[in-house]
Amino acid sequence: MKLFFLVFLIGFVNGAIYNHRDHSSRNKVLNKRYSPDWNDLDTRPLPEWYDKAKIGIFLHWGVYSVPGFGSEWFWSNWKGGNRQCIDFMTKNYPPGFTYQEFAPAFKAEFFDPDKWADLFVKAGAKYVVLTSKHHEGFTLFPSKRSFSWNSVEVGPKRDIVGDLAKAVRNTSLKFGVYHSLYEWFNPIYEEDKRKAFKTQTYVDTKLWPDIKQIVHDYKPSVIWSDGDWEANDTYWRSTELLAWLYNDSPVKDEVVVNDRWGIGIPGKHGDFYNHQDRFNPGVLLHHKWENAFTVDSGSWGYRRNMQIREILTIEELLQQIVTTVSCGGNALINVGPTKEGTIAPIFEERLLALGDWLQINGEAIYSSSPWEYQNDTLNGKVWYTCSINRSNSMKRTYRSGQVAAIYAILLEWPSDNRLSVRSITNSLRSRYNQLEMLGNEGTYLNWKITNGDVEIELPDRATVKSNHAWVLKLATT
Amino acid sequence: MKLFFLVFLIGFVNGAIYNHRDHSSRNKVLNKRYSPDWNDLDTRPLPEWYDKAKIGIFLHWGVYSVPGFGSEWFWSNWKGGNRQCIDFMTKNYPPGFTYQEFAPAFKAEFFDPDKWADLFVKAGAKYVVLTSKHHEGFTLFPSKRSFSWNSVEVGPKRDIVGDLAKAVRNTSLKFGVYHSLYEWFNPIYEEDKRKAFKTQTYVDTKLWPDIKQIVHDYKPSVIWSDGDWEANDTYWRSTELLAWLYNDSPVKDEVVVNDRWGIGIPGKHGDFYNHQDRFNPGVLLHHKWENAFTVDSGSWGYRRNMQIREILTIEELLQQIVTTVSCGGNALINVGPTKEGTIAPIFEERLLALGDWLQINGEAIYSSSPWEYQNDTLNGKVWYTCSINRSNSMKRTYRSGQVAAIYAILLEWPSDNRLSVRSITNSLRSRYNQLEMLGNEGTYLNWKITNGDVEIELPDRATVKSNHAWVLKLATT
Amino acid sequence: MKLFFLVFLIGFVNGAIYNHRDHSSRNKVLNKRYSPDWNDLDTRPLPEWYDKAKIGIFLHWGVYSVPGFGSEWFWSNWKGGNRQCIDFMTKNYPPGFTYQEFAPAFKAEFFDPDKWADLFVKAGAKYVVLTSKHHEGFTLFPSKRSFSWNSVEVGPKRDIVGDLAKAVRNTSLKFGVYHSLYEWFNPIYEEDKRKAFKTQTYVDTKLWPDIKQIVHDYKPSVIWSDGDWEANDTYWRSTELLAWLYNDSPVKDEVVVNDRWGIGIPGKHGDFYNHQDRFNPGVLLHHKWENAFTVDSGSWGYRRNMQIREILTIEELLQQIVTTVSCGGNALINVGPTKEGTIAPIFEERLLALGDWLQINGEAIYSSSPWEYQNDTLNGKVWYTCSINRSNSMKRTYRSGQVAAIYAILLEWPSDNRLSVRSITNSLRSRYNQLEMLGNEGTYLNWKITNGDVEIELPDRATVKSNHAWVLKLATT
Amino acid sequence: MKLFFLVFLIGFVNGAIYNHRDHSSRNKVLNKRYSPDWNDLDTRPLPEWYDKAKIGIFLHWGVYSVPGFGSEWFWSNWKGGNRQCIDFMTKNYPPGFTYQEFAPAFKAEFFDPDKWADLFVKAGAKYVVLTSKHHEGFTLFPSKRSFSWNSVEVGPKRDIVGDLAKAVRNTSLKFGVYHSLYEWFNPIYEEDKRKAFKTQTYVDTKLWPDIKQIVHDYKPSVIWSDGDWEANDTYWRSTELLAWLYNDSPVKDEVVVNDRWGIGIPGKHGDFYNHQDRFNPGVLLHHKWENAFTVDSGSWGYRRNMQIREILTIEELLQQIVTTVSCGGNALINVGPTKEGTIAPIFEERLLALGDWLQINGEAIYSSSPWEYQNDTLNGKVWYTCSINRSNSMKRTYRSGQVAAIYAILLEWPSDNRLSVRSITNSLRSRYNQLEMLGNEGTYLNWKITNGDVEIELPDRATVKSNHAWVLKLATT
Repeated sequence: MKLFFLVFLIGFVNGAIYNHRDHSSRNKVLNKRYSPDWNDLDTRPLPEWYDKAKIGIFLHWGVYSVPGFGSEWFWSNWKGGNRQCIDFMTKNYPPGFTYQEFAPAFKAEFFDPDKWADLFVKAGAKYVVLTSKHHEGFTLFPSKRSFSWNSVEVGPKRDIVGDLAKAVRNTSLKFGVYHSLYEWFNPIYEEDKRKAFKTQTYVDTKLWPDIKQIVHDYKPSVIWSDGDWEANDTYWRSTELLAWLYNDSPVKDEVVVNDRWGIGIPGKHGDFYNHQDRFNPGVLLHHKWENAFTVDSGSWGYRRNMQIREILTIEELLQQIVTTVSCGGNALINVGPTKEGTIAPIFEERLLALGDWLQINGEAIYSSSPWEYQNDTLNGKVWYTCSINRSNSMKRTYRSGQVAAIYAILLEWPSDNRLSVRSITNSLRSRYNQLEMLGNEGTYLNWKITNGDVEIELPDRATVKSNHAWVLKLATT
Repeated sequence: MKLFFLVFLIGFVNGAIYNHRDHSSRNKVLNKRYSPDWNDLDTRPLPEWYDKAKIGIFLHWGVYSVPGFGSEWFWSNWKGGNRQCIDFMTKNYPPGFTYQEFAPAFKAEFFDPDKWADLFVKAGAKYVVLTSKHHEGFTLFPSKRSFSWNSVEVGPKRDIVGDLAKAVRNTSLKFGVYHSLYEWFNPIYEEDKRKAFKTQTYVDTKLWPDIKQIVHDYKPSVIWSDGDWEANDTYWRSTELLAWLYNDSPVKDEVVVNDRWGIGIPGKHGDFYNHQDRFNPGVLLHHKWENAFTVDSGSWGYRRNMQIREILTIEELLQQIVTTVSCGGNALINVGPTKEGTIAPIFEERLLALGDWLQINGEAIYSSSPWEYQNDTLNGKVWYTCSINRSNSMKRTYRSGQVAAIYAILLEWPSDNRLSVRSITNSLRSRYNQLEMLGNEGTYLNWKITNGDVEIELPDRATVKSNHAWVLKLATT
Repeated sequence: MKLFFLVFLIGFVNGAIYNHRDHSSRNKVLNKRYSPDWNDLDTRPLPEWYDKAKIGIFLHWGVYSVPGFGSEWFWSNWKGGNRQCIDFMTKNYPPGFTYQEFAPAFKAEFFDPDKWADLFVKAGAKYVVLTSKHHEGFTLFPSKRSFSWNSVEVGPKRDIVGDLAKAVRNTSLKFGVYHSLYEWFNPIYEEDKRKAFKTQTYVDTKLWPDIKQIVHDYKPSVIWSDGDWEANDTYWRSTELLAWLYNDSPVKDEVVVNDRWGIGIPGKHGDFYNHQDRFNPGVLLHHKWENAFTVDSGSWGYRRNMQIREILTIEELLQQIVTTVSCGGNALINVGPTKEGTIAPIFEERLLALGDWLQINGEAIYSSSPWEYQNDTLNGKVWYTCSINRSNSMKRTYRSGQVAAIYAILLEWPSDNRLSVRSITNSLRSRYNQLEMLGNEGTYLNWKITNGDVEIELPDRATVKSNHAWVLKLATT
Repeated sequence: MKLFFLVFLIGFVNGAIYNHRDHSSRNKVLNKRYSPDWNDLDTRPLPEWYDKAKIGIFLHWGVYSVPGFGSEWFWSNWKGGNRQCIDFMTKNYPPGFTYQEFAPAFKAEFFDPDKWADLFVKAGAKYVVLTSKHHEGFTLFPSKRSFSWNSVEVGPKRDIVGDLAKAVRNTSLKFGVYHSLYEWFNPIYEEDKRKAFKTQTYVDTKLWPDIKQIVHDYKPSVIWSDGDWEANDTYWRSTELLAWLYNDSPVKDEVVVNDRWGIGIPGKHGDFYNHQDRFNPGVLLHHKWENAFTVDSGSWGYRRNMQIREILTIEELLQQIVTTVSCGGNALINVGPTKEGTIAPIFEERLLALGDWLQINGEAIYSSSPWEYQNDTLNGKVWYTCSINRSNSMKRTYRSGQVAAIYAILLEWPSDNRLSVRSITNSLRSRYNQLEMLGNEGTYLNWKITNGDVEIELPDRATVKSNHAWVLKLATT
């Protein structure tokens, strides 16, 4: 993942309708073949599972977990002159030590994919995305084109992608792969680059054969592309790959891909958009998107010296999720496993806390849709989702009259137990006049409307099940 | 530390007065010299700082943090035939690999003693006890008698005891050392043992010279003895050592020692008693004691594969502390640092959460004394401490009329916000009729007494500062 | 190198004329372009330097020098079920340890290419052939297609081929490379193989690009091909490669190649023939050939546990050289450097002893030609070479009347100091009637002819310079 | 061993009688007890086996074989500021790497004590001396006082002393141990030293208990003391140790010790004298002595980068042995085994060449005595020994009339085959008038005496068995 952030602007219309393609249209094009151009590829309907999933787990695992220092960009930073990385190496390793020589210490001796999968289930995630290969080029599967630089031949001595795919699928979750298009130091890529990407030896002999091997062997439901930013999509042959994926691959019906397929492509093409890392616009977007973010605020890969103050609190984690889902995004929550094959207890704790919260409040998240409002116009701590009455409509998005329930998610509890909001005034006035808190169902809350603002009397906090991010449900009586 | 627990019985009289020796008596004996017998050694007054400190941090760090598997008893368990340990070695190491060969990987490359000390301060601890040597025999200081088996010559290449002592003292905290009397596999000890402890070569040429080196070089405020259980105090020459320590050592005024000085000694002699590991009797004891327990419920040393479900929650941690202090004990909270020299974020989180709690509620803990009651007779979730009006008396313990305030510590919040207790009925009826919650000072609470029971109306939970273990303070108006 | 030997038959005519192509013919074809078929490639004249060089040094160096056990076939033998290799791994390494994980220990910390080159000069060698890549696939140069499996990125952190090429060229010696066509465990090769070599992905994306990189970067005078035996020359595209090498490469005038270019090719095509390993037919061959053999009789790569009884004595070494040169071959003498980058003293000793011998006797070896007889018809311990009077003829081979001197090389000294031979009877009777021993020039020896046999009175052994393999020179007065 | 050499002077009388104590005297004192003073200890007769053995093998093996750089003094040189050692460490190891961390790589995986013993037998040695502990302090046996710094707990995981003792004794050879009194970096020793050796903690708690453990467990026939030069024999308690060894130890009848027992002791006391390393005075000494020297001229321990030019040739090796034995010394020939547990082939070759020579010429070495002359007065390349007719006398040394045979050992063969000498003129004129060469027995040589010099006609060199150092035997007809 890139650590740097680009300033960007999103053209959006506040309150605009989130334009998911119709499911009905999908039926019509079941036998459609896509041509390898973006215009046509963009017509593909988003496979339904992905929008409903909402919560995914992202795993950055690789040789960088051995130094576990700085971030998963360690190699590049070190070679690029980063002072901390250079000092770390100078202090702790013999002169001339190379990044490749870290790999044998990537032992993964405690790696238990079933235990991981169980954790992800408990966390309430619906899909898992693992780095099949990061920019370092080390593959977590036995790439035929990464001889002696993969997890089967050095370090873990396991097909990590295969083992985790199997374990994840044994639960109810979907399995996907992250794959970096470029490799920082692969000399074949470097040569293409030196030739201004006029040659495509790397793409033809390494990249696509590897991705096809992955698709063939592991049938991923997500292909999370990255490392695209040095070259155009024409160099990467991105549209050809996607056309094959949508037309002929064994995952053609289910797979979703993100938007990192070359310079200028992110935010423009792809089943869902990631834009840059930790993208969270705060407003509804026209296209399905995903907020990929890290529990360790400082790194995607495991850092052996991370500090607790750098770890997202459960409140911060829920804020990311709530704001993301409210605006139509999925949340892809990253944790970096250790070289030993464990997920650090602090990450476990956060994920289990999330799972506990979702046990109570998942109704407002899973299968939800963005509502007319995302963020309350009066109270910035309140965000909305809704559930669509699907038996009435194939539309997955908000339309007046199709909404079965509205969820107001409260990120901060008012110390006087009285919640003031504005965006639901009309709803409460009309048919959505039954108000309760998730976890305290059956106890209906009182409210009063004054000058267009609603003041809701919250339940006694000592009786409330959730410790953070409380959900009020507005439904019809 | 021993992992096994001994059944033990405490002869106590409920409600008995906790018999700390008078401070006044200390003055009288300032120039007293102790003779090397328990009767005389037992007359030594407890240095005041220790009882007031209440909260200490215990650190088990050694070569066992390299395998980080099972517990700090890894070596002994492995060689003793433990199946998991044997399998772990068989699976991950070449045949014949020895425990000593783990030591070079104990790198401590991220060890920053100032950062640690800062954490312990933030956690609210008042003293720190580090394993200068555990049963493995590896010393964290340059023992003159542990050539090539110490942290300066192998692994960290640092005088860890010295470096941490300095950092801890630079804050307001006291520094102490754990020291294991025996060494599982030291052949000199083994030979004494084989001779039924008739010879004392190990004690004379290794043990006491090492401890004297430690006392001389680091001037520890605590000597936390362990590994005593195979031999009598006469073999260990315990009383001679303590007489020297109390009479002639550079720490004679300040040092406190525990009670593990030979078969039959624990719970009988020593400045404070540890009894067995994780000792927490639930009743007031006649002698100062300490509950040494672990945040990782499964181990004192760091385990690379610990699971979040094995880590004490903040509620469980506070329960240990509250029940301990209420019964006259100190809480010595153990975390095992990693071989890298870090304290795992999950431990950081617990310690900082404790520190946050103590920021609000420390008044009920530090410098407190056990009260007339420890555990409420009606409500098992409520524990008491008190503060003694010291200007009126040199006594540190409860006496009717000397108590400045009574603290009722509530481990569980009643869902109806009404707390029922019985042990403070008389106090409320008499002079202690001002009731407030720490953190919400100035807001006085209402109560009513019915049939000898008190029902207190708690404040609105949404307004309460503490998230766990709330403290009610009873004072005089 | 293959350790197994194939039975083979050489069609030869005893005493036949060794049919080197004329040098004159070379001039005629200077601008000739070769087409990629064997018939045409076979017409290429042998570059003159190679036949004159006679003595080369062969170096097998790679990751196999780390286990240094069995032979350079360690990986293949181990994975193929060899009991000794399996036991070695089981006893000394953790389960799952892979061959790739040996590579970081290939440190070459003492590698001093100038010192090596100096040794080879002192040994009397005229060319050096280094394994640029053995069957393991690990390249000793920064192959662009062997990312993370080469000596620059793992282990030595040096371009070993480049460093040695430079050092060797700084002396008077030629530099060549060994290159294995196949790689035991390269999955791209394995896939071609699985497809019965119908696909050529490995050849097109790995093999030839690598060889072209080598030729371009290091301009080797020898390409010593190996590992050809699983596929036909059509799979390897051997003739295309050779046509490029002879027509367009930067080494087109100087390069020589051996004969391992596919099933059925050895002994049939190539600038010189190696046939199988340690080929030494004992008779004159029609085509230039080379005897590649090892000083350690048990391995080409360094074995850490080689025994002195397995090392060729200087007598055995000279026997190989003398019999080889006598029959028209070159001797390529192999030593395996250590993982440290040294050449074991026992190898140094043999090479320096050879150099000492050649200082005295080199006249009979370098630039010599096979004579009418190779092995004396009476005395099996005597072998012949001759020198051609080149000012009279462009022919490099024996023709009656063109011979300037005949050399009889005696492998065993007769205890009675009298040497009996038969093949030079006529020569001594005609013009070659001056007889002296190299090293004792100026002292002419007596002989008598009886029944067609010659009995030569050898000099007093106490006065003789050489300790082994004495050379008698027959010249004209 | 010390690498530096002291200039020294030997007071000797040329041709003086070598004053071995009578064997008869030994019988008289069989029950004698020695008191711990040098005067009395010096009266002990030399056990007969030692003088007869003549040839021993010395083995320097320890952790220094891991860096294998510089010499066995690597640690001391490195820490003492030696530039090469510092550069070697800086270049190849991480900062802070300690000498102790080399130990795990001392694997000895190929160590086969029976194979070693077989080699020593074939070399013609009669005793073997192994470093039980060098100055580094690492013991090759499970010292009870070197916990975690010995070959059983780190590295080889074997009792090397025990294993080799057993293997050596299974052949006809004697087994002895080298033991360093001091340890460079043992803090207990350093403390005694800092106190000007007024305390003897190191000697009492480490040194003598260790030596007694060795004597008890392995019953060595030789104790080869070293590292004595920083302190007096009173610090080392040398005389007490020797008195115990001679009076009460299990090896009291057989053991021999050298002379390194404190400042001023070498060359004055001890069963045999070593003086400094590589001592070879060239003249007869009054007391039994030993020339301990190395086959690798640059080091006692194995050097991974030794060069062939630094290795003694067989001629140099024989010269050492011949001159030593001629002057009454034993030759203790040192080779340094590798960390792998092998003896380098170059050392094997030298030892086997020695064995071959002794097969032919051993009669002049084993059980021989110094003769009237050591070095011929005319021909410096000729050295003498003799055999004593023991049935006539208990004296082991030369007395006119008791000599059974005289051996003239010729280190250089005269190119005219005529040997000129002077010291045997009288012998040849009297009864020793039968002259033959060992290996060519039965062929009697002619000589003539001119002006007191003898000119001997040597046999034809082509018929001589030995390749170096030929022995002429003068006997009576």
